[in-house]
Amino acid sequence: MEKRWAGVFREATAPIVERFTESISFDWRLFRQDIAGSIAHAEMLGQIGLLTPEEVNQLRETLREIEAEIASGQLPFRPELEDIHMHIEQGLVERLGDLGKKLHTARSRNDQVATDLRLWVREAIDRIDQQLGELQRAFVGRCERDMEVVLPAYTHLRRAQPVLAPHVWLAYCERFGRDRERLADCRRRVNRSPLGAAAIAGTSIPIDRQTTAKRLGFEGIIENSIDATSDRDFVAEFVFDLAMIAIHLSGWAEDWILWSSTEFGFLQLPEAFCTGSSIMPQKRNPDVLELVRGKCARVVGDLQAVLVLLKGLPLGYNRDLQEDKIPLFDAYDTVSSCLEVGTEIVRQAELDRQAIAQSLEKGFLDATTLMEYLIGKGVPQRDAHHAVGRLVRRALDLGQTLRELSLDVFREFIPGIGTEVYECLGAENAIRAMKSLGSTAPPEVTRQIQRWKVKLGMIVREDAG
Amino acid sequence: MEKRWAGVFREATAPIVERFTESISFDWRLFRQDIAGSIAHAEMLGQIGLLTPEEVNQLRETLREIEAEIASGQLPFRPELEDIHMHIEQGLVERLGDLGKKLHTARSRNDQVATDLRLWVREAIDRIDQQLGELQRAFVGRCERDMEVVLPAYTHLRRAQPVLAPHVWLAYCERFGRDRERLADCRRRVNRSPLGAAAIAGTSIPIDRQTTAKRLGFEGIIENSIDATSDRDFVAEFVFDLAMIAIHLSGWAEDWILWSSTEFGFLQLPEAFCTGSSIMPQKRNPDVLELVRGKCARVVGDLQAVLVLLKGLPLGYNRDLQEDKIPLFDAYDTVSSCLEVGTEIVRQAELDRQAIAQSLEKGFLDATTLMEYLIGKGVPQRDAHHAVGRLVRRALDLGQTLRELSLDVFREFIPGIGTEVYECLGAENAIRAMKSLGSTAPPEVTRQIQRWKVKLGMIVREDAG
Amino acid sequence: MEKRWAGVFREATAPIVERFTESISFDWRLFRQDIAGSIAHAEMLGQIGLLTPEEVNQLRETLREIEAEIASGQLPFRPELEDIHMHIEQGLVERLGDLGKKLHTARSRNDQVATDLRLWVREAIDRIDQQLGELQRAFVGRCERDMEVVLPAYTHLRRAQPVLAPHVWLAYCERFGRDRERLADCRRRVNRSPLGAAAIAGTSIPIDRQTTAKRLGFEGIIENSIDATSDRDFVAEFVFDLAMIAIHLSGWAEDWILWSSTEFGFLQLPEAFCTGSSIMPQKRNPDVLELVRGKCARVVGDLQAVLVLLKGLPLGYNRDLQEDKIPLFDAYDTVSSCLEVGTEIVRQAELDRQAIAQSLEKGFLDATTLMEYLIGKGVPQRDAHHAVGRLVRRALDLGQTLRELSLDVFREFIPGIGTEVYECLGAENAIRAMKSLGSTAPPEVTRQIQRWKVKLGMIVREDAG
Amino acid sequence: MEKRWAGVFREATAPIVERFTESISFDWRLFRQDIAGSIAHAEMLGQIGLLTPEEVNQLRETLREIEAEIASGQLPFRPELEDIHMHIEQGLVERLGDLGKKLHTARSRNDQVATDLRLWVREAIDRIDQQLGELQRAFVGRCERDMEVVLPAYTHLRRAQPVLAPHVWLAYCERFGRDRERLADCRRRVNRSPLGAAAIAGTSIPIDRQTTAKRLGFEGIIENSIDATSDRDFVAEFVFDLAMIAIHLSGWAEDWILWSSTEFGFLQLPEAFCTGSSIMPQKRNPDVLELVRGKCARVVGDLQAVLVLLKGLPLGYNRDLQEDKIPLFDAYDTVSSCLEVGTEIVRQAELDRQAIAQSLEKGFLDATTLMEYLIGKGVPQRDAHHAVGRLVRRALDLGQTLRELSLDVFREFIPGIGTEVYECLGAENAIRAMKSLGSTAPPEVTRQIQRWKVKLGMIVREDAG
Repeated sequence: MEKRWAGVFREATAPIVERFTESISFDWRLFRQDIAGSIAHAEMLGQIGLLTPEEVNQLRETLREIEAEIASGQLPFRPELEDIHMHIEQGLVERLGDLGKKLHTARSRNDQVATDLRLWVREAIDRIDQQLGELQRAFVGRCERDMEVVLPAYTHLRRAQPVLAPHVWLAYCERFGRDRERLADCRRRVNRSPLGAAAIAGTSIPIDRQTTAKRLGFEGIIENSIDATSDRDFVAEFVFDLAMIAIHLSGWAEDWILWSSTEFGFLQLPEAFCTGSSIMPQKRNPDVLELVRGKCARVVGDLQAVLVLLKGLPLGYNRDLQEDKIPLFDAYDTVSSCLEVGTEIVRQAELDRQAIAQSLEKGFLDATTLMEYLIGKGVPQRDAHHAVGRLVRRALDLGQTLRELSLDVFREFIPGIGTEVYECLGAENAIRAMKSLGSTAPPEVTRQIQRWKVKLGMIVREDAG
Repeated sequence: MEKRWAGVFREATAPIVERFTESISFDWRLFRQDIAGSIAHAEMLGQIGLLTPEEVNQLRETLREIEAEIASGQLPFRPELEDIHMHIEQGLVERLGDLGKKLHTARSRNDQVATDLRLWVREAIDRIDQQLGELQRAFVGRCERDMEVVLPAYTHLRRAQPVLAPHVWLAYCERFGRDRERLADCRRRVNRSPLGAAAIAGTSIPIDRQTTAKRLGFEGIIENSIDATSDRDFVAEFVFDLAMIAIHLSGWAEDWILWSSTEFGFLQLPEAFCTGSSIMPQKRNPDVLELVRGKCARVVGDLQAVLVLLKGLPLGYNRDLQEDKIPLFDAYDTVSSCLEVGTEIVRQAELDRQAIAQSLEKGFLDATTLMEYLIGKGVPQRDAHHAVGRLVRRALDLGQTLRELSLDVFREFIPGIGTEVYECLGAENAIRAMKSLGSTAPPEVTRQIQRWKVKLGMIVREDAG
Repeated sequence: MEKRWAGVFREATAPIVERFTESISFDWRLFRQDIAGSIAHAEMLGQIGLLTPEEVNQLRETLREIEAEIASGQLPFRPELEDIHMHIEQGLVERLGDLGKKLHTARSRNDQVATDLRLWVREAIDRIDQQLGELQRAFVGRCERDMEVVLPAYTHLRRAQPVLAPHVWLAYCERFGRDRERLADCRRRVNRSPLGAAAIAGTSIPIDRQTTAKRLGFEGIIENSIDATSDRDFVAEFVFDLAMIAIHLSGWAEDWILWSSTEFGFLQLPEAFCTGSSIMPQKRNPDVLELVRGKCARVVGDLQAVLVLLKGLPLGYNRDLQEDKIPLFDAYDTVSSCLEVGTEIVRQAELDRQAIAQSLEKGFLDATTLMEYLIGKGVPQRDAHHAVGRLVRRALDLGQTLRELSLDVFREFIPGIGTEVYECLGAENAIRAMKSLGSTAPPEVTRQIQRWKVKLGMIVREDAG
Repeated sequence: MEKRWAGVFREATAPIVERFTESISFDWRLFRQDIAGSIAHAEMLGQIGLLTPEEVNQLRETLREIEAEIASGQLPFRPELEDIHMHIEQGLVERLGDLGKKLHTARSRNDQVATDLRLWVREAIDRIDQQLGELQRAFVGRCERDMEVVLPAYTHLRRAQPVLAPHVWLAYCERFGRDRERLADCRRRVNRSPLGAAAIAGTSIPIDRQTTAKRLGFEGIIENSIDATSDRDFVAEFVFDLAMIAIHLSGWAEDWILWSSTEFGFLQLPEAFCTGSSIMPQKRNPDVLELVRGKCARVVGDLQAVLVLLKGLPLGYNRDLQEDKIPLFDAYDTVSSCLEVGTEIVRQAELDRQAIAQSLEKGFLDATTLMEYLIGKGVPQRDAHHAVGRLVRRALDLGQTLRELSLDVFREFIPGIGTEVYECLGAENAIRAMKSLGSTAPPEVTRQIQRWKVKLGMIVREDAG
């Protein structure tokens, strides 16, 4: 089949070149966007008098017909038709003859693919945002039932201080909340129309770019035609945002892999989310969490692919850009599937309250509270720190917790201390002693749960009271 | 010297460990931020009655003294003091004794370094934003003098259509404009206070986080204490924003390396920005542009380092995070120096008008305008495209431009065409024919130059009329 | 369907988990390797008496049958069967009942997939090596016909010195030659058998690992069972080798994109390897070369994905490792297709001798030879360099080449120089003056062409004369 | 100061350009290599009669003098002298006048820096190889004292099977052993001489490249002059090898961070290798291990920087290449320091035998051995797996280990089983039952320890018996 651009050519494209350069095997995913863009373009051509109303109607209906055929898998894809744009145009020409040939007036594949891709990314952002909301609601939704559970918080993977389980759940929510902010920022930059920039310099046909932009729901147009056709910042930015989500998911997965191990024993994963071993009969492995962690690598690799692609490219459309869609689609699919399965795990996993309680007093989680108690008594922080440090050392040697130490031992390091010191010891007391904004103090955590519930639409503000 | 945290330890830190774990060799750059954070913290401790007004004054003055000493290089850095925080605290204790030991009350290095880093990034964003503005002004500033120059625009590095030189300059401006938008978005996320989150769980001391946040110019606080101490999203996001700037610079550098070659001959780089060869006497190499392009690789590598660092890290502060500063500082320094030198080149390079004009009619830059002319006559786009393609083929065989072809040749491919066709041929005519919003049509370009001038504060709006 | 490992489980796997964790959609590519490994394993089990000869025969034949069904697309893939291993095992059990259940004796999916993957990579290395050989032969194969063409060699994309075209072709050959060396090194590390390491600790069944290794063509076994099941170095190393090939291809593509531009005009790409524009009728774009350059980004991204995946993973098999195959397969497919299409371009592109000759004397390619001529006359290098530099400056001002300068001008900068200086001027003379090993001196280039022809099996050594 | 290459220039280099393009701040590290290369070059120039023996002597002695001055910090570095090559040449000219100006005969900075860099990488490889040997010896050196310790081996971070501690140590040795193989392969490619390739095309001066290659210890020359000056594969390959080492270190660090946690409790890190918290008095954090894990990210980022740098670069030296040294030096320094500190930790950490023993029977480490026992009795593997799986399920419900189950319970799932089943139960029995090559069977582990001791020169082969 002769290519639509073949006028200047003397030789036909070699078959291995058709196979090598085709993008229909992945850019078919843009078919709805391409149809929408074409309809908007046709309507605008009608508006400026380049097509009759009847022609516009015919184009619109035939494009919808082609859309339905692609959606139902009826329209066959052929490498020699290169990409989704040519498939749809060919469908038009086969059905409408000369009229089909008119649609590409004042349009280039350069602005066309940029338009399609922006429409696609816009939807993808909305979908990921919605999934992030679900995940946040899964965390917030379990805060009340886990309210009584005290967990050790870790720094350096060493027991640091006691915290309420919901305090941890809300920490994850904050991370995913920032991801949603970033997506919203990215969306503003995505949602500008390149349509009408044509190949690179604009067109001598008196088109109306504002009209197509409005019809497609764009918030405005990209002003400069060179920029409009060559900009792929929005792809890089969206994939970066996906990479940050993937990194947040990978950290959560790491936490929960550890917590559900025999050694930590804090968490029971639903068996329906574990898999077994072909050789070791006893194994119930956290495969889903491991894959969530591992798939993060892929999204980071996708981001790098996009950046390397763009580095050092001269201005204007270069065919290299065709390769942006593969990492884009892969990063989106990967993160979306991780969010879907991750949300279910968050909903269904159960804390093992007994096991947590049994080991809670290990690791001197109350040492900092004791130090702050001494500061309250007027001991300079550095001295209080040192004294408590020596005391912990002694407790370690004796194999005791701080609460188990006798008052005599306390007085050895902190002369004159009285029995009321025991009131700040133990994980429960340490939590109750907390006062600062954003701390794990129970009233603070309750306040934040309410804040998130309102924010996530789980209650209306009046209930928040 | 015994470490401040050594109470619980029986053994001193090994010297190779001190060398391996120290960060003072790079985090000294945070000294101003650390001092500012410490003063705000001391003032707050005074406000809640944990320090007397006199003590606050002493701390403030001594901290300012230490700041001046570090700024002037008088305070020696010692690996055994680990980091900038310990250096400053040690300075305090040496001068103020017990009072110095009190400053760390209700503060951990975890929230302290997060605060310092956010203050530093905030300043870095402002500096880069200001440099980007300079670069944009350099481009806009040369638009009027280059207004008459017509350049070939390229797609696929093949001559595509003619454009006005300022149209290209504004395309670069758009890219850097998006970079500034991204920085502004990032800044909002950076500018929230983690101070007071302490180690991870908050503190039992009744501090006032809102007050320190306000004193340090933060727009609010980070609510969750676990998140406040472990979040490094802002580092990744800023380094990503820097990577995008670097990629934009690398594209511009690639363009100008090509344009200033013997083969293109469009641009003369200022000799003060070229360097020579040790062996080839004739060489004047575009080293600065090559380094701008090459340094982009480093920034992309820095981003990758930050992302890999964060992947799979458990919640809470982990010492791995110390490594975030090295790629952060490197990415900032690299991009900042590229912007500085790049801006000068943009200001000083000169278009070689004669050489450009000589080769301008090569490459059939007017073919698209001719096609659109035919569309205007009612030929369907695909047929018009084909006819012009065949015509170009013939011109190639004859070694002629389109304008040089005889009317007979035209009529062979486009029956009935008249002599008025010559009016749309040639690069100058092609540009004048342009009509669409954002195209290279001279009135459009003029409008956009004005828009940018207003936006960049180069003229006040009234002048824009 | 109940999973083969489900004994310990109380709940069935959730369908979204089956979809999320399945790998059959990509690891089906390992089916031949899995069958080969299973046959070797069965034969070994027969040898040590755990299966009868008859049982071994049945397994072997049924495995071959399943292999044929997969090859012809008859065996349906089902997500709930997870991976290629389970599909094949299920096929066996369905056909052979209890005998099928015996095959997994003393084998885990951990050593099984490691075996399959090594066999696959071994074949992939051999295929890429063979393709690299083809590409080298394409370059060497055109050396003789291009022998007379003198090209400007570039440093900093500025004309540097004249070289024979074949000298450039051989530079590419050197790069791809190193790639082949790296592949050969990698192959030695790939070609060791992990089979028999079982899950992680080995097995209590008295298997014979040497025998399966030998049957599968491995050069030895991986000694440590923990290492055998968790090592993925070979994946990373092979993908790195592929990334280096991709980088070499990207450099060549960049060169040839430039060379085939209107501005350089050195090279005519075969039209069958170019594509056109949907809007600009005159365009013949070097899409294939651009895609080769762009696809490099993907392979670099794949390498990063593998490295990020492995970073910080605990010892032993982790499910994250399942994700290694996606970047591995993608990197292989990408590089292999670039090599295929690249080789054809190398064979078919034609140098534009006339255009090259016309511009050859631009850029003072003979300046270095002139300097070396002066050194031969006893002028210290730095002084000779300076004098020639001044001379070039003067020639620039006069708009002349060095050869066109009068003797008087020469004498202004190099007192006492005689007319014989003209003998080393001009690109042709500069090439003829070359003497050093590995230089572009014609006899040197001829010698190297012969060396490569022997190395690549294009002539037998005797012909090398 | 006028640049040595300034002849052709009319303007002096701008100071901001000098600061931007200088490399002396990092390439001073090449000074020994640059001196060595210069001496070899001078001696060769003497040999071919371009310098007198006396001149060669003078150059050699003055170069050694300059080397000593740089080594002792006496020679000041100046940005306007650009790089280490110009600093040394300037030193020569200042001391030797015209003779100094002769040294650069038939040499370009292009082949000079390639030579220096190869010499530097060669030494760096040797140093890293030696450090890897030390690390391996540290692991092997503790095998005998840890021989009696049985550890749970993990897959999916779930207890899998019991292994001897030395079996784990040797798994690490295998990884680092492959790293050493890769370095050796890389070294062969590094150790070829580019010297004499000059700028890009060779030289008309009759130099002897074989002689300089031999004097510098190279194993041969790089044949093609274009390739010799532009090849940076060896940098990428070495940095990749470093990245693999860093990844292996990061995995080990992750393991040992986990193992030394309260929750695992297997390992006591030497206190001299831990650090404390500024606020939490009880903390002894594994900072060194965390930094080893975190620094891996930097090396992966360095590799990415090198690859991005090279992607799409045209043939011949481009100034972008200057940027290769920064990631190269950083990756080397980082990995070298991790190896140094890592080796000490391996030597000094102690297994907590009591804690390990206490938890060893958790996790059903003997389940696989039990299954294999049943296979030995003729039960098909899949049925044996299922039966043991059900048995484990029952034990979980009863809160018992397999060994604690009554024979009645066993018989419920495995009819007819006798009391001898208890002989294969328990971690110790499971280990003793192991038989396969490379397994954790004690005689196998002993054999492998001996193999490594011989390989690492810890015993001579005769002792190995």
